[in-house]
Amino acid sequence: MWMSELAQRSGLPVPTIKYYLRDGLLPAGEAVGATRARYDDSHVRRLRLVRALTDVAGMRLEDVRRVLAAIDDPTLSRHEAIGSAHTRLAPLVTHSSSAAQQSRVKDLLDRHDWELAEHSSHRDALAGALAALADLGHPPSDELLDVYAQAAELVSERDVSSLAETDRAGATEHAVVSTLLLEPVLLILRRIAQENSSRRRSR
Amino acid sequence: MWMSELAQRSGLPVPTIKYYLRDGLLPAGEAVGATRARYDDSHVRRLRLVRALTDVAGMRLEDVRRVLAAIDDPTLSRHEAIGSAHTRLAPLVTHSSSAAQQSRVKDLLDRHDWELAEHSSHRDALAGALAALADLGHPPSDELLDVYAQAAELVSERDVSSLAETDRAGATEHAVVSTLLLEPVLLILRRIAQENSSRRRSR
Repeated sequence: MWMSELAQRSGLPVPTIKYYLRDGLLPAGEAVGATRARYDDSHVRRLRLVRALTDVAGMRLEDVRRVLAAIDDPTLSRHEAIGSAHTRLAPLVTHSSSAAQQSRVKDLLDRHDWELAEHSSHRDALAGALAALADLGHPPSDELLDVYAQAAELVSERDVSSLAETDRAGATEHAVVSTLLLEPVLLILRRIAQENSSRRRSR
Repeated sequence: MWMSELAQRSGLPVPTIKYYLRDGLLPAGEAVGATRARYDDSHVRRLRLVRALTDVAGMRLEDVRRVLAAIDDPTLSRHEAIGSAHTRLAPLVTHSSSAAQQSRVKDLLDRHDWELAEHSSHRDALAGALAALADLGHPPSDELLDVYAQAAELVSERDVSSLAETDRAGATEHAVVSTLLLEPVLLILRRIAQENSSRRRSR
């Protein structure tokens, strides 16, 4: 297909697609003469993926590029690709933390029997979030954190079991995409549930 | 205190604080002569709050401004302030959706006995996320969405019961802050839990 059809099928304007081509987010088409190129279904699919990661997961193009690299790396297993995609994303939290908060994170991981790679950014991100809440006078209790951890375990067990049902082809993309695109789903559901819990209590 | 002490106690550089003053994110200090002003603890607190919302919740200054307006509005109850803060945030998802996805969202809300304001942006945001997953060939099953909804109910019941323990002064700020700052905590815990579930299965 030509560029115009690619734009129509992906739902993205031509200038945006040209920008992604220059930027390496979309592989080049098959050159036909000096100024035209043909594209195929793999280009449509890649553009839909980029669009979902920016519009739904709210990711910056810089992070999208890193996540695509994890998906495209044939040496990574599905498990490694999920970890690698997480690692390549910008940390969710950049607030600095103290030794006290880092030790709370360690205790939380221990209580839930969770292991983390030595240099995982999750540790600092979590300690930073706890530090910010403590600085504002609202440190979450261990009991509250345990409820959050329990909810996280509930959804992640379901995530991982649904990935196990997928056959190998496209499994890495599926794993990374559903990991990232279900994040806003969880947050929106929490906001809805919270408004409903709060309404019931304020009656 | 003078500007230099405000910078030291808030952990923010003077040019950033001056920018927030010009931008209305921080109320002016008490003028002392033509070029100097004195600040107090309320300014330190407000700067820590702005910093936490940007560094931890990853919010844009435009959204921070709207959330502060909800916190500062004396006419809102705590319940209304949470809803208002949610409403004033940029939608988490801007992907367009179809009637089919909107009907799935309606069914999900019905199954969990959740009500939403008529013009709540949560509905479209959720339908947009489901549409993006479906476009990529990974539509989440109702059963998966129900597990997510169950996890959302678990944390939000805990959130709302911890808010009930807080006394009235600062309760609105507390409600809004913990709602927003615990979002990245939940996502980080899900990423950690997912890596652990995935590792256990890949052994």
